[in-house]
Amino acid sequence: MPYILIQVTDEGVTKDQKEAMIAGATDLMVKVLNKDPEATFVVIDEVNTDNWGHGGEAVTRRRQREAARKGAAK
Amino acid sequence: MPYILIQVTDEGVTKDQKEAMIAGATDLMVKVLNKDPEATFVVIDEVNTDNWGHGGEAVTRRRQREAARKGAAK
Amino acid sequence: MPYILIQVTDEGVTKDQKEAMIAGATDLMVKVLNKDPEATFVVIDEVNTDNWGHGGEAVTRRRQREAARKGAAK
Amino acid sequence: MPYILIQVTDEGVTKDQKEAMIAGATDLMVKVLNKDPEATFVVIDEVNTDNWGHGGEAVTRRRQREAARKGAAK
Amino acid sequence: MPYILIQVTDEGVTKDQKEAMIAGATDLMVKVLNKDPEATFVVIDEVNTDNWGHGGEAVTRRRQREAARKGAAK
Amino acid sequence: MPYILIQVTDEGVTKDQKEAMIAGATDLMVKVLNKDPEATFVVIDEVNTDNWGHGGEAVTRRRQREAARKGAAK
Repeated sequence: MPYILIQVTDEGVTKDQKEAMIAGATDLMVKVLNKDPEATFVVIDEVNTDNWGHGGEAVTRRRQREAARKGAAK
Repeated sequence: MPYILIQVTDEGVTKDQKEAMIAGATDLMVKVLNKDPEATFVVIDEVNTDNWGHGGEAVTRRRQREAARKGAAK
Repeated sequence: MPYILIQVTDEGVTKDQKEAMIAGATDLMVKVLNKDPEATFVVIDEVNTDNWGHGGEAVTRRRQREAARKGAAK
Repeated sequence: MPYILIQVTDEGVTKDQKEAMIAGATDLMVKVLNKDPEATFVVIDEVNTDNWGHGGEAVTRRRQREAARKGAAK
Repeated sequence: MPYILIQVTDEGVTKDQKEAMIAGATDLMVKVLNKDPEATFVVIDEVNTDNWGHGGEAVTRRRQREAARKGAAK
Repeated sequence: MPYILIQVTDEGVTKDQKEAMIAGATDLMVKVLNKDPEATFVVIDEVNTDNWGHGGEAVTRRRQREAARKGAAK
C-alpha cells in the first residue's frame, strides 16, 4: 500500500538511477514495514531548476552563484 | 472545495479521456458530497513509465517483461 | 497504476461517503482508461477548515460569513 | 522546514514570475513562522490546460468558451 | 534538494520505523544521486484505513475480508 | 486556478498564522500572476515532527540535539 513520491531537480537523472531509486525505496518499505512490493508505488517527479526554489531563489540562479564562487576561488 | 489529483502513466491518454476523467471526478464530488463544481479542481499528472515504479521496478521494464511473456505464450 | 488523491474539508465526511468516493474514483479509471482496480490507489485527505484557504481566507471564516449573511436574509 | 507546492496552469509563466513566487512564498514563511529560508523549498508545477479541470471541464475548453462569449459581447 | 513523501496506512507505524524510513530514504538519495542530507526532506503521511482505497474498497473493509477468509481457512 | 500546498511541522501554528499564510499566498498569486482569489486554493498541512525528516533524522530528534547543544553552550 505505500505510495512514495520522490521529487528531485531535473539535473540529468539517468534511467539506471531511476531504477535504483525505485528498487531502493521499495526495498525500504519491505524491510521497515514488511509491505508487499506488488502493492507499492514509487513516483519520481523531475522538476526544472527554474521551478525549484531553495533559500528564496531558483536553483538555476543558486547553481550559477555556486559556480561563480568556485571559479573565483581557483 | 475539493482538489483531486489523478496520477497515471503517460501511456497515450487522449484529450477526450482527460475530459471524461475531469467530468467524472467532478460529478462524483457533486453526487457524494454535494460539492460545487465551480469550486472543484481536478489535476491530471501524466508520469513517464521510467518514472513510475511498481513491484520494485519501473513500469517501462514491467511492460517489456509482460510483452515478452505474452509473446512466449503465443 | 492510477494514484488518486482526493482532498476535501473535514466537514463530517461519513464512512459510507468515503467508500462511495473510493468506488466511484476506481470505477472511473476502469471505464475511462481500462485500469486494473487491484493496481489503483485512492487516498482521501480530510483538511481542517482552518487549514483550507479559498478566496484569501480560511474556510472556517468563509462559512461563518455565509451563515451570517443567510441569517440576515431571513 | 517548509515545503511549498505551487500548482498553476502552464499559461506562459515567465522566469521572473517564478523567481517572484519563490521569493514571495519564502518571505511569507519568514514573516509568519520565522522559518529559515535555507530550509525552505518551493516547487512550482506548471500543468497543461488540458490536464486541469475546473467546473467539470478542462481549462482549455473553459478558456475557449470565455473567449467566444467575450467575442460575442463586442 | 530532494523532497520525498511516503504515504502509508496508519496501522501502528512506530517511532523507530519512522526514523528507519527517514534515514533509509535520505541514504538512498546520497547513494544514487549524491544529494546533501541537509537539503533533503522526507515527509511521512499516515493515512487512516477508511481513507485509503485499494481495489475499489477501503483498506478497512479489505482487511476485514482478508481476516474472515483466513479465519475460514483454519 | 492556483492550488498551493504549504507543509510545515506542527509546532504550534496558530489560527492567525494560518490566516496570514492563506492571505499572503493568495495575494502573491494576484500580484505575480493576476489570478482570481475566488479560484485559488491554499491548503496547509501540519506534519508531526516525528514524521518530518531533515538531514536523515526526524525533526523531533534534531530539535532535541539543538536544545542539548544550546544548553551545553550556556
